[in-house]
Amino acid sequence: VDERVIVSREPFNAETRLDLQQGPLTPPGRHYARSHFAQPDPPASVTVGGAVGDPHAFTIAELRALPSRSATVTLECAGNGRSFLRPPAPGEQWALGAVSTAEWTGVALRSLLEPRGLSPATVEILFRGADAGTPPGTGRRIAFERSLPLDRALADDVLVAYAMNGGPIPTEHGAPLRLVVPTWYGMASVKWLAEIVALEQPFRGFYQAERYVIGDRPLREMRPRAVIVAPLGEVAAARSTPIRGYAWSGHGPVARVEVSTDGGTTWRDARLGAAISPAAWREWTVEWMPDRGEHELIARAIDAAGEAQPLQARRDPLGYENNAAQPARIVAA
Amino acid sequence: VDERVIVSREPFNAETRLDLQQGPLTPPGRHYARSHFAQPDPPASVTVGGAVGDPHAFTIAELRALPSRSATVTLECAGNGRSFLRPPAPGEQWALGAVSTAEWTGVALRSLLEPRGLSPATVEILFRGADAGTPPGTGRRIAFERSLPLDRALADDVLVAYAMNGGPIPTEHGAPLRLVVPTWYGMASVKWLAEIVALEQPFRGFYQAERYVIGDRPLREMRPRAVIVAPLGEVAAARSTPIRGYAWSGHGPVARVEVSTDGGTTWRDARLGAAISPAAWREWTVEWMPDRGEHELIARAIDAAGEAQPLQARRDPLGYENNAAQPARIVAA
Repeated sequence: VDERVIVSREPFNAETRLDLQQGPLTPPGRHYARSHFAQPDPPASVTVGGAVGDPHAFTIAELRALPSRSATVTLECAGNGRSFLRPPAPGEQWALGAVSTAEWTGVALRSLLEPRGLSPATVEILFRGADAGTPPGTGRRIAFERSLPLDRALADDVLVAYAMNGGPIPTEHGAPLRLVVPTWYGMASVKWLAEIVALEQPFRGFYQAERYVIGDRPLREMRPRAVIVAPLGEVAAARSTPIRGYAWSGHGPVARVEVSTDGGTTWRDARLGAAISPAAWREWTVEWMPDRGEHELIARAIDAAGEAQPLQARRDPLGYENNAAQPARIVAA
Repeated sequence: VDERVIVSREPFNAETRLDLQQGPLTPPGRHYARSHFAQPDPPASVTVGGAVGDPHAFTIAELRALPSRSATVTLECAGNGRSFLRPPAPGEQWALGAVSTAEWTGVALRSLLEPRGLSPATVEILFRGADAGTPPGTGRRIAFERSLPLDRALADDVLVAYAMNGGPIPTEHGAPLRLVVPTWYGMASVKWLAEIVALEQPFRGFYQAERYVIGDRPLREMRPRAVIVAPLGEVAAARSTPIRGYAWSGHGPVARVEVSTDGGTTWRDARLGAAISPAAWREWTVEWMPDRGEHELIARAIDAAGEAQPLQARRDPLGYENNAAQPARIVAA
């Protein structure tokens, strides 16, 4: 029994059930999954090569012998919220559940890169998964590949992870090794990681230049978003009812969550739960005493960088970054 | 397939596989489990009663509507390490795997107690599980019951938890509600929590006065311990080999871990990993270049309160709190 909402079986894409989310972590079996091709055979090692003086293939055992780091990270698909666009945009029709949080453990990417002797001309680091196929309309077989600018790749928080919530990474989440790029949309966290390549020219592959872009800009940090996880559907009228949800942003910590119970006419600040990690969502709650009748609940996040979640969708032709606050209809009886 | 080491099937007692531990968290299916009786039917609510002005039975839905708290907590059975005692002590024969770490989410116990109007004469809070049976040799049927002194019960860190690593608590770990008392041995974290009772006299029940005691002192905080999780068995000679493990103490943060590779003749300080929570174990590592032959590895923890893990077992008749550093034999070939 998969407790998720299956969006497509082949390749496997599934949303988490936000109504089941409790506490900061999502169990791996309920974590949203995004894949572009069939799940590959797990690579036995990851190669660090390209413009480096001393290339090396690291086995899992070698990585596990290095100092480990752990981080609690919210990952969100850049297509989360796409299904609310009218007319529809192409791509997987995600509602709001293409987001989840896990504790990832592994080694700092920089600790694998720096000892290899990067060429001074290095501008980007490319990550290649073991998964490959022919994207519709392209007619050519490619691997899933995505690059990071050098400074982002060398930041302390980027992990080559071998564990998720304390266990080995499940196949669907990228076993045995997954790149984890906190604060960025999930496309940067390359699964089934097989190759790490130092590049002296910017990468222009399909998933860098034709998908996961807005215009000619490759997608980066997650835009702020708040989601409501409870209540859903029907509630008792004239009884104090908590409204509960999560909020996150890749551009800085969530500073405030505003909640409206009247379709956006009036707004109140929600109480924020503990900030457990700079890269993880934050729980929020607000009390509500609903009158009998139908109500429209809206929550929106504002981050420390001052960016507020919009109330209207910004329409991108490929349906990325639709972080518009999504009203939820509740009947109080 | 249970990935644990089964110590007894009925009641269910199982150790975690420390050799599989990665990062701070243990997945619920690998978390050690301790039970005294058969698993009970899950209680539908938890009653707060006894010496209070306004008793109340909380449903799970009511608890989930209250502000939530999450904490990463290492729980250890007070009998962990008992199997190394010679002659053997009675009780479950735990090796070193009766310890695991999870993120628990729920409500602060104090937030359930204080609004009920505690009698000023309250001295202890009693916790009763839904599990019951007749302990061998007693001839009477009792529930699993354990109390906390009032000040410990009202401390901020004690949780009535409804989630474990982001999911509902599995049956074997106390579904739907478990008391979680960070820094204390696991017997205080009552599973299948059904009743919370304010007492004006100290509790003297079986698991408070006849078990989980040393002499007439009920057990409390975990003593410091370090465990080695790698390497195990055989290693390659003359190759740099990391020694890796975890360390914890309920009496204060771990200040230092010392490692010997020559049976205790010489000692080196291990490098400590990040302290992710005041109540969670801490990973440690040390590099080792083994000569060909047999070696005796020992790790010991020293906590911030100055308590050092002993090298010799302190023998308690019931085999509790045996935190002696346990040598591991490794062959380098």
